[in-house]
Amino acid sequence: MNIIFLIKCPDHTGLLANISSFFYNSGFNILQCRQYTDTINEKYFMRIQLDGDGLKSSRRELETEFDAFAAEYDLEWSVHYSDYRPRVAIMVSKTSHCLYDLLERHTEGDIHCEIPLVISNHPNLEYIADQFKVPFYCLPVKKGERKQQEAAVLKLLSQHHIDLVVMARYMQILSNDFIAHYPEQIINIHHAFLPAFEGGDPYRRAYERGVKIIGATAHYATTDLDGGPIIVQDVEHISHEHTPADLKQIGKDVERLVLARAVKYHLENRILVSDNHTVVFK
Amino acid sequence: MNIIFLIKCPDHTGLLANISSFFYNSGFNILQCRQYTDTINEKYFMRIQLDGDGLKSSRRELETEFDAFAAEYDLEWSVHYSDYRPRVAIMVSKTSHCLYDLLERHTEGDIHCEIPLVISNHPNLEYIADQFKVPFYCLPVKKGERKQQEAAVLKLLSQHHIDLVVMARYMQILSNDFIAHYPEQIINIHHAFLPAFEGGDPYRRAYERGVKIIGATAHYATTDLDGGPIIVQDVEHISHEHTPADLKQIGKDVERLVLARAVKYHLENRILVSDNHTVVFK
Amino acid sequence: MNIIFLIKCPDHTGLLANISSFFYNSGFNILQCRQYTDTINEKYFMRIQLDGDGLKSSRRELETEFDAFAAEYDLEWSVHYSDYRPRVAIMVSKTSHCLYDLLERHTEGDIHCEIPLVISNHPNLEYIADQFKVPFYCLPVKKGERKQQEAAVLKLLSQHHIDLVVMARYMQILSNDFIAHYPEQIINIHHAFLPAFEGGDPYRRAYERGVKIIGATAHYATTDLDGGPIIVQDVEHISHEHTPADLKQIGKDVERLVLARAVKYHLENRILVSDNHTVVFK
Amino acid sequence: MNIIFLIKCPDHTGLLANISSFFYNSGFNILQCRQYTDTINEKYFMRIQLDGDGLKSSRRELETEFDAFAAEYDLEWSVHYSDYRPRVAIMVSKTSHCLYDLLERHTEGDIHCEIPLVISNHPNLEYIADQFKVPFYCLPVKKGERKQQEAAVLKLLSQHHIDLVVMARYMQILSNDFIAHYPEQIINIHHAFLPAFEGGDPYRRAYERGVKIIGATAHYATTDLDGGPIIVQDVEHISHEHTPADLKQIGKDVERLVLARAVKYHLENRILVSDNHTVVFK
Repeated sequence: MNIIFLIKCPDHTGLLANISSFFYNSGFNILQCRQYTDTINEKYFMRIQLDGDGLKSSRRELETEFDAFAAEYDLEWSVHYSDYRPRVAIMVSKTSHCLYDLLERHTEGDIHCEIPLVISNHPNLEYIADQFKVPFYCLPVKKGERKQQEAAVLKLLSQHHIDLVVMARYMQILSNDFIAHYPEQIINIHHAFLPAFEGGDPYRRAYERGVKIIGATAHYATTDLDGGPIIVQDVEHISHEHTPADLKQIGKDVERLVLARAVKYHLENRILVSDNHTVVFK
Repeated sequence: MNIIFLIKCPDHTGLLANISSFFYNSGFNILQCRQYTDTINEKYFMRIQLDGDGLKSSRRELETEFDAFAAEYDLEWSVHYSDYRPRVAIMVSKTSHCLYDLLERHTEGDIHCEIPLVISNHPNLEYIADQFKVPFYCLPVKKGERKQQEAAVLKLLSQHHIDLVVMARYMQILSNDFIAHYPEQIINIHHAFLPAFEGGDPYRRAYERGVKIIGATAHYATTDLDGGPIIVQDVEHISHEHTPADLKQIGKDVERLVLARAVKYHLENRILVSDNHTVVFK
Repeated sequence: MNIIFLIKCPDHTGLLANISSFFYNSGFNILQCRQYTDTINEKYFMRIQLDGDGLKSSRRELETEFDAFAAEYDLEWSVHYSDYRPRVAIMVSKTSHCLYDLLERHTEGDIHCEIPLVISNHPNLEYIADQFKVPFYCLPVKKGERKQQEAAVLKLLSQHHIDLVVMARYMQILSNDFIAHYPEQIINIHHAFLPAFEGGDPYRRAYERGVKIIGATAHYATTDLDGGPIIVQDVEHISHEHTPADLKQIGKDVERLVLARAVKYHLENRILVSDNHTVVFK
Repeated sequence: MNIIFLIKCPDHTGLLANISSFFYNSGFNILQCRQYTDTINEKYFMRIQLDGDGLKSSRRELETEFDAFAAEYDLEWSVHYSDYRPRVAIMVSKTSHCLYDLLERHTEGDIHCEIPLVISNHPNLEYIADQFKVPFYCLPVKKGERKQQEAAVLKLLSQHHIDLVVMARYMQILSNDFIAHYPEQIINIHHAFLPAFEGGDPYRRAYERGVKIIGATAHYATTDLDGGPIIVQDVEHISHEHTPADLKQIGKDVERLVLARAVKYHLENRILVSDNHTVVFK
């Protein structure tokens, strides 16, 4: 078992020495430690990974002890134990490639989590959830009843103790209220290289503009649609020969990879968010 | 010597057979032929490269003959002879890397052209033109005298029989009138992945948005600033660790390559423009 | 319906004009035409795609007629009709990601073929074939009985009228005799950037050499192990932090993509083979 | 001024806490710290960057003090002060693009060093050194006099207090004796993706094998030709259309970039070498 602390705080001298000494003096072997100082905004970010064998007390005691230490240095922090499998809900509409990809990676053991359910506003992809024996909930968005539908989704997420919501091409705009329930816990895939082509139908617009590269962007959902902190982006070269339909097809491979990487980084506790930016310790 | 015809026309059947037969029957060996049918807009594009040894008449006669043929099929066309070295003017301001790169490639024989002059609105880069023994003209843009400066530039371009203007980080917006003198003959490099970050200071804005990829775009200048037909784009991955200054630095390598490729494709007569799109036969 | 002709022959003048005229005069609309002249070996390659609506006779008649024409010009050729779905057998051992990927793409309609069976020398991946409702045949290779096993495989391939065999991480070396039954019809994925790390355990050897990039190679199987004509290659950047296990994991995404692209190009009749090289008209 | 310590040692617990505390207690602000634990070989690597304002003693005193500390923990280490400009010799033969690129980057201020001389075994590139006002020494390798030539080169390097030798397409094999004078201080660019195509004429051999990607490798020169620790690699996609001459041309851009990055990482003290591997803290 490993223990990972994610820490952010105002930058000042002695942070590395003091934090690493805290864990060393507590008897931990530090397996990995990554830091980043944002000198422009004077902020400090750290991910420290400890060998769990060093834990001589209860987890609660470790946390209480660290909390006292953190207060001294004004640290914001969270702790994660590798023997806990985070619980992930996948939300989809009618597009299947990202759902397939995530379920396949899960089956292969490439992403460390439980996937207790798939939620959709359409019945179309139930067969895929079935293939992988994951419960599928269809909650259509009826006209004028978005609020009720979101309430039903939130209830399901809560009942299943969900830690992370992955919008794997869920083609609905979530309300601010919904998003507020899962801050920095909703990952969305946008099928364009943001901030180019925000909003709908990006492949058609990419075709119309005549770009020579298309991309995809995984980001945390915030109340600013397509404006949340970017986690991963990637691109693919295209040419004049590609129709909008080709772009959609080519884009699928980029979307799959970008979303899978973002989910993986999140589940491995490699991401810290600050001022609409992500610090990703790959 | 090679002869290259660039052709565009409304799509209809028989174009390939008829055009290739025209050249075959005229005694030419076709070295390369690339076609593209834009099925959405029903347009046809062709680049055909002939062995110049097949030319039994004068160039003028070939052109007259082909013109008659082209009229029949409603072809728009241009012809290019590989023993002519197109004449290129480079325009710069204070940023040197693209200028260096183009002059170096020219010296190495990697781009097939003459570079009879470098024009700038600042004196700063004269030493580079000097290094490569290329005449340097400094034409500052004085307040309220943009028109006069452009007139002076146009005069220089005309005197030097310029075929292609390369804006290698020339930080002035050209007037519509100026651009009208060189339609599809002015290549600009924009230091962002268009259409993201159109306009000024794109690296700072990329930093502020927290993107994970930066890019560069070479395009033909049109009256729509940063909106002209895109020729080449490329990108580089970045991380949270990069400051705006780092992005500028990293971006230099992308800008250099993207601009050099666009210039090369243009000089090799590989580009056709239609409806603000480029067809690039690489 | 589309008709695709793949043609190769010694290079001489008039090929493009004569071949395109043949089809034009036969009443066909040429949708796409790609050519390539290998000037070093003086060979000519063409892929020509016709609108099937132009077919006024039977397919057999078209082929007979073209065969007479081809004899005149010394053309080697094959013809493919888009309403035929090629029949693909996937061969695997214990590694699942490429199998998953191909079955998923097939389900999504991204690769145009039938997959009537999966063959393996191990029972491990039967559950995946089951998930996608594809018959699974387990034919273990018992000591000293490779010949018998290959005979059983060949019998299955023949019974199912297989056009293409995809070795999606099938960890057995095929005999020359086996390969001779399917010339240019067996695609293998090698988990390295060939010709680096030919043979076994390439990721461990990549780690040991300390490379900064790993890759994958899809190629046609020939009697020269890992030496067949390369169809697609791609790579991923790595760093000193990656263990051999990480490389295996990272490599999976490259392998998936590279194999899927090679299979797609083959099924779209975009590949011609000559002298251990592929001409791929993307 | 910044101070950078590069440290390697057998791995054991407490290294991070103890080393960072050493510098913190000495009054330094730690600007950056990167660590890597090679768990397979049980080795620890660190790059720590200090704000030079913390230096209250002489540099010699700091080094003496750290040396005592290092002895306790069995650390191998080196220290680098950012106000020192390392002295770089560039060695070339007849190929100019890497020389151009390095001199241009130096002029632009992108690589932090002095370049007091260029050495070649041919007179061809003197004009480039002249353009950039760098002294050029031509030391031809006469038959049977390689030893004498190397002695002359070594004398020049020593006279100019050279810290780093960059073989920017120097087409001579250095003797073991020569290399022993500059351990981990000679960077070579190989125009292939090592370990593929070790030795001569890699582009021709890449063409013959029919690869779909070409690459370049920057590595430290060791007595094992083309076998030294790899620093940077990159690649470019190619197709069947590219002749060996095209590959050479395309390869130039990869070579330039790869060599420039390796030189930059070295000059920024980002590289540690261990067991023929590099740890590169980008």
